[in-house]
Amino acid sequence: MTETLYTNITQLVTARPGPQRGAAMRDLQVIPDAALLVRDGVIAWVGERTAAPTAARTHDLGGVAVVPGLTDPHTHAVWAGDRLADFEARISGVPYEEMLARGGGIRSTMRATAAASVEDLIALARPRLQALRASGVTTAEVKSGYGLDFGAERRMLAAVRALQPEFGLVPTLLIHVPPTEARAEYVQGVCEDLIPQVAREGLAGAVDVFCEKEAFTVAETRRIFTAARAHGLHLKLHADQFQTLGGTELACELGALSVDHLEASGAAQVAALAASDTVATVLPGVTLHLGLPAAPGRALIDAGALLAVGTDLNPGSSPLFSAQLALALAVRLNGLTPAEALTAGTVNAAHALGLTDRGALAPGQRADFLALHSADWRDLTYTLGGNPVRDVFTGGTPA
Amino acid sequence: MTETLYTNITQLVTARPGPQRGAAMRDLQVIPDAALLVRDGVIAWVGERTAAPTAARTHDLGGVAVVPGLTDPHTHAVWAGDRLADFEARISGVPYEEMLARGGGIRSTMRATAAASVEDLIALARPRLQALRASGVTTAEVKSGYGLDFGAERRMLAAVRALQPEFGLVPTLLIHVPPTEARAEYVQGVCEDLIPQVAREGLAGAVDVFCEKEAFTVAETRRIFTAARAHGLHLKLHADQFQTLGGTELACELGALSVDHLEASGAAQVAALAASDTVATVLPGVTLHLGLPAAPGRALIDAGALLAVGTDLNPGSSPLFSAQLALALAVRLNGLTPAEALTAGTVNAAHALGLTDRGALAPGQRADFLALHSADWRDLTYTLGGNPVRDVFTGGTPA
Ligand SMILES: [Zn+2]
Ligand SMILES: [Zn+2]
Repeated sequence: MTETLYTNITQLVTARPGPQRGAAMRDLQVIPDAALLVRDGVIAWVGERTAAPTAARTHDLGGVAVVPGLTDPHTHAVWAGDRLADFEARISGVPYEEMLARGGGIRSTMRATAAASVEDLIALARPRLQALRASGVTTAEVKSGYGLDFGAERRMLAAVRALQPEFGLVPTLLIHVPPTEARAEYVQGVCEDLIPQVAREGLAGAVDVFCEKEAFTVAETRRIFTAARAHGLHLKLHADQFQTLGGTELACELGALSVDHLEASGAAQVAALAASDTVATVLPGVTLHLGLPAAPGRALIDAGALLAVGTDLNPGSSPLFSAQLALALAVRLNGLTPAEALTAGTVNAAHALGLTDRGALAPGQRADFLALHSADWRDLTYTLGGNPVRDVFTGGTPA
Repeated sequence: MTETLYTNITQLVTARPGPQRGAAMRDLQVIPDAALLVRDGVIAWVGERTAAPTAARTHDLGGVAVVPGLTDPHTHAVWAGDRLADFEARISGVPYEEMLARGGGIRSTMRATAAASVEDLIALARPRLQALRASGVTTAEVKSGYGLDFGAERRMLAAVRALQPEFGLVPTLLIHVPPTEARAEYVQGVCEDLIPQVAREGLAGAVDVFCEKEAFTVAETRRIFTAARAHGLHLKLHADQFQTLGGTELACELGALSVDHLEASGAAQVAALAASDTVATVLPGVTLHLGLPAAPGRALIDAGALLAVGTDLNPGSSPLFSAQLALALAVRLNGLTPAEALTAGTVNAAHALGLTDRGALAPGQRADFLALHSADWRDLTYTLGGNPVRDVFTGGTPA
């Protein structure tokens, strides 16, 4: 048994364990002059220092605020190639069609990713995950979805598996881009070959679908979700980024873990999410990078939805390498308060991955926590362009 | 004499020396497989590696892109106290008046700053300047302006002077907040006591005025500018943040170094700036933090103005600790291309401080340059929330 008492914490600030909605998202526990007891990687006790139990070892954190480690519930951190030419062209006013004609767009990422070995993909993803880690991430979801074929999808998931022990990753199989031909056969193959294989090999815990006019229909999504559930996999959805097709309502009906994006969501989608246990995950990096409308974060919380925030780290629409900045952006762009942002990036983000063992500083939870540079936890979402996170602890161990 | 040849540069990318306007802001020099010769802190030669002269010492940069060091032409990096309660209150919908009634707002920063010693101010500013440095800043302007009285103003400038050798700072005397009473006497004191003192002691090279409805009038600004010029000081202006009062036109008429903010500028102000050598400095951190309109960066460049980008680092309206993110935000929020942003953050930003010896990688310029993590310079403004800057060299020395 290893046991450490962390002391000299000006403020220990945490959401309550488990998913939180509505006003409960703002109801943080704030303990001044706190201590934190970790036993074998799990939180054993939290409270005021003067009431702390004795421990074999003491670790003085030097008078700073402590918050839970962040969960990034939505990334596409495994890719090859780059989209810098696309970035420059779009900003310079080159039409999207011409960008595609130049060989750009998501299919260029798919070609490069499909051509990469698992070793290449691991080497490319590692510095991105290190950047997320430095921003406070102790758990991150990583999706497949750039594979042109099922083999490439499985290589992406193999790269995630290889990086899992180092970074605490949760892999998701993403059905992302429909083929240009033989579409029905592709969906059939996803349902009858890819999903069963991935489930059998334990390569992913959830299946995600990109449900948009340019991607998969609601009927195709339902078919894929049905196969996923039959194989014991959780459901996630990219929906309402550009249009409200009914994907959000379907996901809520089927008990999906989360629906992500929601920039185009209206009252009906907000109501469906609020009436469900499905997490509404907003992605402010996309809003900033593409200059698109922001998802209605404020309305979702006020309606009672479970809200989370993700980076959506990906080369085309969100080159956002910091979960801290994602939360800071959610405060500015989606109308969250600092307290709601902390809840959205911890317990609610963990719930969006089906995880209940982390995200709060409470007995029995994983000892994933951050020591800030500041004595005031609010610097976490106040700071733009600097890193307010000094130390990242995962399972009680400095990362 | 010390002499170093920097090699293994995939791309050396720079604006031409001197201020650039219009299409020239996009006309970067891009040298593939480059080398850079530094002699006694100054660039002696730039070109393709195969044509490089021999040097006493060679430094292999490891196959990455090199760009000029950034100049941040607008910061308020010296302050005491914090505005975290204001931040939380504003986001939670507390009216500005109530925030003031609670003791918040800029006057709380002024009280805390006036109460701090020079040593306190130095200790508080250092980590902020270290964060800017890590983001690629090799020259930064720092303003006074939180002093309640002239003694406090001079203590702020003394703190800047103390930090100058470490960070390459350029101090500006900012006439920021009018007193609540005896306003005419205050302006008279600024003109007849403070400005002459500051000029005599060399505490600042320029005088800046906050010209807005809630701050100083155009007539007061003219009076202060006249005194500044009489004492050989450059002029700078905060204007058009909320209203167009005529301050921008005055600054252009009097040959000010820069007018900063410009969120409310219309066609007349854009035209005045375009017809002048006064730099238009945009501050996208304020746009993001306060959710206010963005300054018309695209229109200013298209009209032919000299455009620069600053962080406006300050606790109330722009807690932005990265010049790299300021440029990345200017691309997203002000419509700059990546090339224009690089020019805006280097030669044009230096010009906004009256400096012509830096900002370009060309013979005779200071050897202030950045080695990125990437082989492609465009990662500098593409990256959100990560730091694309690997090494910062000032005067040829790693910082
Ligand atoms: Zn996504
Ligand atoms: Zn300012």
